[in-house]
Amino acid sequence: MKPYAEMTREELLELKKKLKAEYKEYQSKELKLDMSRGKPSIEQLDLSMGMMDVLGSDSDLTCEDGTDCRNYGVLDGISEAKELLADMMEVHPDQIIIYGNSSLNVMYDTVSRSMTHGVMGNTPWCKLDKVKFLCPVPGYDRHFAITEYFGIEMVNVPMTPDGPDMDMVEELVSSDESIKGIWCVPKYSNPQGISYADDTVRRFARLEPAAADFRIYWDNAYTVHHLYDRGQDHLIEILAECKRAGNPDMVYKFASTSKISFPGSGIAAIAASQNNLVDIKKQLRIQTIGHDKVNQLRHVRYFGGIHGLVEHMKKHADILRPKFEAVNEILTRELDGLGICTWTNPRGGYFMSFDSMDGCAKEIVARCKKAGLVMTGAGATYPYGKDPHDSNIRIAPSYPPLGDLKMAMELFALCVKLVSVEKLLSEMPQENAQ
Amino acid sequence: MKPYAEMTREELLELKKKLKAEYKEYQSKELKLDMSRGKPSIEQLDLSMGMMDVLGSDSDLTCEDGTDCRNYGVLDGISEAKELLADMMEVHPDQIIIYGNSSLNVMYDTVSRSMTHGVMGNTPWCKLDKVKFLCPVPGYDRHFAITEYFGIEMVNVPMTPDGPDMDMVEELVSSDESIKGIWCVPKYSNPQGISYADDTVRRFARLEPAAADFRIYWDNAYTVHHLYDRGQDHLIEILAECKRAGNPDMVYKFASTSKISFPGSGIAAIAASQNNLVDIKKQLRIQTIGHDKVNQLRHVRYFGGIHGLVEHMKKHADILRPKFEAVNEILTRELDGLGICTWTNPRGGYFMSFDSMDGCAKEIVARCKKAGLVMTGAGATYPYGKDPHDSNIRIAPSYPPLGDLKMAMELFALCVKLVSVEKLLSEMPQENAQ
Repeated sequence: MKPYAEMTREELLELKKKLKAEYKEYQSKELKLDMSRGKPSIEQLDLSMGMMDVLGSDSDLTCEDGTDCRNYGVLDGISEAKELLADMMEVHPDQIIIYGNSSLNVMYDTVSRSMTHGVMGNTPWCKLDKVKFLCPVPGYDRHFAITEYFGIEMVNVPMTPDGPDMDMVEELVSSDESIKGIWCVPKYSNPQGISYADDTVRRFARLEPAAADFRIYWDNAYTVHHLYDRGQDHLIEILAECKRAGNPDMVYKFASTSKISFPGSGIAAIAASQNNLVDIKKQLRIQTIGHDKVNQLRHVRYFGGIHGLVEHMKKHADILRPKFEAVNEILTRELDGLGICTWTNPRGGYFMSFDSMDGCAKEIVARCKKAGLVMTGAGATYPYGKDPHDSNIRIAPSYPPLGDLKMAMELFALCVKLVSVEKLLSEMPQENAQ
Repeated sequence: MKPYAEMTREELLELKKKLKAEYKEYQSKELKLDMSRGKPSIEQLDLSMGMMDVLGSDSDLTCEDGTDCRNYGVLDGISEAKELLADMMEVHPDQIIIYGNSSLNVMYDTVSRSMTHGVMGNTPWCKLDKVKFLCPVPGYDRHFAITEYFGIEMVNVPMTPDGPDMDMVEELVSSDESIKGIWCVPKYSNPQGISYADDTVRRFARLEPAAADFRIYWDNAYTVHHLYDRGQDHLIEILAECKRAGNPDMVYKFASTSKISFPGSGIAAIAASQNNLVDIKKQLRIQTIGHDKVNQLRHVRYFGGIHGLVEHMKKHADILRPKFEAVNEILTRELDGLGICTWTNPRGGYFMSFDSMDGCAKEIVARCKKAGLVMTGAGATYPYGKDPHDSNIRIAPSYPPLGDLKMAMELFALCVKLVSVEKLLSEMPQENAQ
């Protein structure tokens, strides 16, 4: 099929009629498909059921240093859990604190602490007139929700295929003392699946922030979430790079096992320099006596170590890969060459990013919904839910079974075509109109 | 033995010599006894090992409403966990939010949220010049640590056998708008083991605070932690009482299963009015996608319901009761009638409270330490660690095995006697001194 832009009004009208008929047929099927969030599928959850067996009533719940995991204590995590998460996060066990079940919670608490108590002796942000965060866009809605909740002004920074626009990041960070952070999902980014290029990471490590308490919020959520065993994306380890660059304290790194074992029942961690860890623990010891050590032990005993965890991730990949490939195939088959959209085709993570023609995303998502398919809300990938081009849509292929996913993506492609045709028609000069 | 105060200088000197000899003997034993925290004993932890078996790889981890507990979602807890905790907290399941592993963390987050976002539309506390909390004393050091950390000024309110001095509480709360909260452990209080009298609870519910955002922090940590099946302390349920009194929003109630299943691996909850819950959830949904539902399910399936939990607590009581009784027996045998101290003998909870002569507590704890017995630091039961009388010492009988505990308490009693004798001697007019 030829690009829509080259079609005549008559051709477009004809096409619209055909697409509308197809759409009506979908509506009659009363579908209930949900692709709104990056949730693992039931099949993926089943992969970790063995974790329910590793601790039993006859188990010794003592960890390597003799700590009884059943009792109070151990603020920053048992040593074997630190080793597992440190291996996963590519840092030394001494560089991390193990938290509870959610890295989002760790990030929230990190911002909250900065608001009330400041960062390493700097003025608490709640005492400042203005605090800003840089937000590479498109990005992760729950990151933006945290900064919005705390009244932090968010500044969009466009993503490039190599990561955030670093010219802009460098310029802003070095000139504006009110910029205190930047949200990053540096590997298999949410939603584009982009991994930051080596040069991008190096430029991050070499930033010269105007604010002494500027921190890179490095949410390495998908560090081991490859779709392919060969041809994995590689990311330069940011803590070591910052240290080499003379900026050891400039980054907080976050990760969790949410999409490795069970989302909501995993373990999360922060990695940072000693100075930062000391600063964080001052607060953490007031907030809690310690996190769930039994669950830490459960994870360690189940995975055995980083190799076991990596092998486990291959099983996830085997389930996820066909889904990502199906999405790409359907989009290619249905939309390639029409000149009405682009999309990413990442090699890991949980999302693909789709860009329609400007001004079409909200309407595409709305049409999908009316036919029974819930996509992530258009705009969700931008701060304040405001996509200036109204073009970006996040695709989350993980949760639906493959058959449902294929139907969903066919419906999605149909909605893209229909809305695009309508858009093009609306922009054409009316016949007989003077 | 006669009261020390009635002894002559010579008698006291003789006694001191004898006590010193005994103390030296203890020192030679190189004891290592820890009574510093209210930790369950190993025997108690063993009671809950069956919890490790209730979920296995062949278990269905779906909860009653069809939610797959292994995946993301359910912000405020699965319904069956709400029912269990609600029954425990004597409220309706709609009145609670289930959190993670620690009620201390819930309390911290509650104060933190009030600092950054205020309470139900009121000015965030970080924007106020002065925020104060009332602190019934002696009390729980970790409560005081939270308010101290946030720069909240703490005002001591003396405990009476019926709870906090309510004349003082009423007077302060109604006259000072900067008073935003009061820390309460209303049942088997930490450290005295006092349960608030009916009239005390009623007066709490009828407070007329100057501040619209004043809240009672009702940490009902020991609600089911009876030592005796008969003669349990009863506490009027505060949410219902506040509602009846026309103050439905005035209280946050906290609890957890920390001393029921495994400390640090249990589940915690807050109970409050709908208005408060709506206010809390606005923040909670930014902070997390949800807490550990698998662990919620584990608790529900293990206890079966509130009756199972109550039966389980009887097993804890069977282990704890002899320890509390041993402490009381030894203190009675060694110290009763000497006129140098008093102590409480509660019917539940985790602590007993000991009061020496003024100015002796720090020295008693130091002497214990030098002989290998770690007690909770003297002063810890007061805000800022400052006991104005230097007299209060918290006794935590739970952790040591009974044999160790008895030895520890004998050593403790010896240190009390020794320090008291020295104190009395130091206050006597020196012979031959002009």
